[in-house]
Amino acid sequence: MPEDVETAETAEAGARPAARPGGRNARVRSQILAATTELVARNGVAGLRYEEIAELAGVNKNSVYRNWPDRARLVSDALLQYAEDSAPLHDSGDLRRDLVDFLMVFSERLSSSVGRALLQAAVTAPGNTDLDEAVRTAYDRRFATVRKRFDSAVDKGEIPPVDSYFLTELLSGPVYLYVTRRRRPFTREVAEKIVDVVLAGIRATAP
Amino acid sequence: MPEDVETAETAEAGARPAARPGGRNARVRSQILAATTELVARNGVAGLRYEEIAELAGVNKNSVYRNWPDRARLVSDALLQYAEDSAPLHDSGDLRRDLVDFLMVFSERLSSSVGRALLQAAVTAPGNTDLDEAVRTAYDRRFATVRKRFDSAVDKGEIPPVDSYFLTELLSGPVYLYVTRRRRPFTREVAEKIVDVVLAGIRATAP
Repeated sequence: MPEDVETAETAEAGARPAARPGGRNARVRSQILAATTELVARNGVAGLRYEEIAELAGVNKNSVYRNWPDRARLVSDALLQYAEDSAPLHDSGDLRRDLVDFLMVFSERLSSSVGRALLQAAVTAPGNTDLDEAVRTAYDRRFATVRKRFDSAVDKGEIPPVDSYFLTELLSGPVYLYVTRRRRPFTREVAEKIVDVVLAGIRATAP
Repeated sequence: MPEDVETAETAEAGARPAARPGGRNARVRSQILAATTELVARNGVAGLRYEEIAELAGVNKNSVYRNWPDRARLVSDALLQYAEDSAPLHDSGDLRRDLVDFLMVFSERLSSSVGRALLQAAVTAPGNTDLDEAVRTAYDRRFATVRKRFDSAVDKGEIPPVDSYFLTELLSGPVYLYVTRRRRPFTREVAEKIVDVVLAGIRATAP
């Protein structure tokens, strides 16, 4: 039987379910978002139905509606969660290692079926689809966290002040081509070479 | 009325039409290849019909058959011509300028409707389609010419010995993401920054 998030946990508290991370509701929300991403990848945004999301997530349809009355927000949140899971950028204090880890997870997700489906959707009919806009919105929100990691590295003097957008594309672009062209395997060694060359280049060309 | 390449120019010579560059036959061949690329982008390889190619190119169907009895070869030649037109890599003696020019033309083609269609086809159903294989074959042939340009730069001492494949992906990857994500315009200034950072990084990390 599907769980109903609101009834079970949050109705009496009156709080937004997201405010209780780590609990059962957080798990349910996460399941809803994962189901949404999978369905969007399968059928696109236009074909998305709350009933199907609830069924795939194993929750009550009302849980979906109450947590996300706004459909565009649901899609954007789902893609954001997917993007963050896809490429977590940690701050271990070791910039090189964090970036290599970031590229490795990014490459794994790019190779997955959901990753490929989203990729395909994003390059299809640019500017014409809801999905295209959702992917771009999720990317913008996601990018804000990547920027923080770079800012922290700049503060510590590990790299000179840098355009985070440019740096992100410089690092992710080659990964993208390695994975989609499938001419050479994308290995940790390749990821390390990319990070080393790009960081050295950023330092060498600093004004 | 469609032109018939074989009858008009080459039947009596018995030579492969391609052997006469710059002539009418070269133009006809080029039209056939362009028509093929456009149809492949539109309908995929499976839907490709010689009649349609001839019609779109404005030539006799026999011209297509005689020049390319092998269909796979036709598709591969068409994509190769497209790729070479898409990203000519000249050798002006100025490596930086040549690479910036290369990235600029690459970005323009990526933004075109045929470019997007091929891109979409290439990321769809990887490994399962004829097109996927044709794109990869064309890419391999294309890559051989890029490698030459780098070898020439290495010979002149402009850059240290380098893995050409790695270097190509390092340069093209960011262009690819700028164009497909459409978050920031891809300008000549961005192309110059990419080339400068990558070349500086390659030099700084040389063993």
